[in-house]
Amino acid sequence: MSIQSVQNERVKQWVKLHGKKGRDESLQFLVEGEHLIKEALKVNCVDLLLIEEGINNPFDFSVVEECSINVMNKVSQNVSGAKYIAVCHYIEHHIVDATRVLLLDNVQDPGNMGTIIRTAYSFNIDGIYCSNDCVDVYNDKTIRSTQGAIFHLPVIRCDLNQICNELKGEGYQLFGTALENAIPFSEAKDFDKVALVFGNEGQGIRKDLLGLMDQNFKIEINEFDSLNVAIAAGICMYRYRK
Amino acid sequence: MSIQSVQNERVKQWVKLHGKKGRDESLQFLVEGEHLIKEALKVNCVDLLLIEEGINNPFDFSVVEECSINVMNKVSQNVSGAKYIAVCHYIEHHIVDATRVLLLDNVQDPGNMGTIIRTAYSFNIDGIYCSNDCVDVYNDKTIRSTQGAIFHLPVIRCDLNQICNELKGEGYQLFGTALENAIPFSEAKDFDKVALVFGNEGQGIRKDLLGLMDQNFKIEINEFDSLNVAIAAGICMYRYRK
Repeated sequence: MSIQSVQNERVKQWVKLHGKKGRDESLQFLVEGEHLIKEALKVNCVDLLLIEEGINNPFDFSVVEECSINVMNKVSQNVSGAKYIAVCHYIEHHIVDATRVLLLDNVQDPGNMGTIIRTAYSFNIDGIYCSNDCVDVYNDKTIRSTQGAIFHLPVIRCDLNQICNELKGEGYQLFGTALENAIPFSEAKDFDKVALVFGNEGQGIRKDLLGLMDQNFKIEINEFDSLNVAIAAGICMYRYRK
Repeated sequence: MSIQSVQNERVKQWVKLHGKKGRDESLQFLVEGEHLIKEALKVNCVDLLLIEEGINNPFDFSVVEECSINVMNKVSQNVSGAKYIAVCHYIEHHIVDATRVLLLDNVQDPGNMGTIIRTAYSFNIDGIYCSNDCVDVYNDKTIRSTQGAIFHLPVIRCDLNQICNELKGEGYQLFGTALENAIPFSEAKDFDKVALVFGNEGQGIRKDLLGLMDQNFKIEINEFDSLNVAIAAGICMYRYRK
């Protein structure tokens, strides 16, 4: 029997996953779009699949609830609705045997966050540490911008000052991006272990965190402007790709 | 006297500027946000400033219409409304004495388009040629993503095949980004004049246009993935910055 009413209690629970509070409470998030759902299935994080009634199930996964179009529109986070929505559980990530990591301090734009995750995965970066005030990685727009990389690359929320000290102990070179006391990026040298740190779209890296860097660099641009944080991260990750 | 009614004929004209059709008809577009309006004023493309009634004019520009909050909300393209909106006229662009240009073939995402324009300006690229099917550069989201670079960097809509032939005649090296018949990007050589060509988010560069390239390159990423077009363009523009 398909779920017909948007007043159904389970529907209300799924809609709560639109917000970070609801996601953190049930440790679940929503994924839409065939490509992204397939990526989620690869790592076994799908708990349940919602499918519009009358539509065939194109996935190799059988825990399914059929829902009316009204219910699908209600649960979907897209204006145009969705034929398939996966209810997924949070992915437990560990960064192991790493030599290239990214640290993100208070990155706020979901598109930037998603694009950085996608780019990091493409350049074989081993993982990303995010400050607790970064935008949620399970935000719908972040997930879409990752193009599925979120299911494969470890992204860990933590205290960045503490992680910096741990990384130093492991022999990492800590590179900050900053305008002052910075060398031109083209002069940055090779190191076995590199941690690249990027900051907030408006304010950059917090001062106390910047104090923990081994070196700061500045991507060479004309003096009046600044780069989008995802572009800056992309240029640096390409240089230090594996 | 301030404009009170959203039914006012002038208000209806301004609202038409939300769409490409309306913009192309009157050759005007809207700009919101203090920073962007200041950038527009620098290049004298503001025709008229709309200001919420009761708010002081912070700009050095006196062709102003006071409007009610309802009118401002109606004309604004942002959910949260706007205190200031500039009605601007299209900027006539010319690319002269150039040695670095970008060609964009059917780029569709306004955020990507805006970020590419912003990045090109930061790396002193001389101008951008867009295919006629690219997203409109006067789209609200594009303008915001440029952070004002749209007012300073020439962006010209044209037939890319024709431009490619012209650029070849001027001694440009035409570089396409492609997966096949491509050299690794790190092996790309220096040239006096370089044109970098980027394609659609899903399909890449059109085949007939790709046939006009002198060389294709591929940014070295893991084999399963692809880069966001703005990230790819950022990496290439950094390499060929002026």
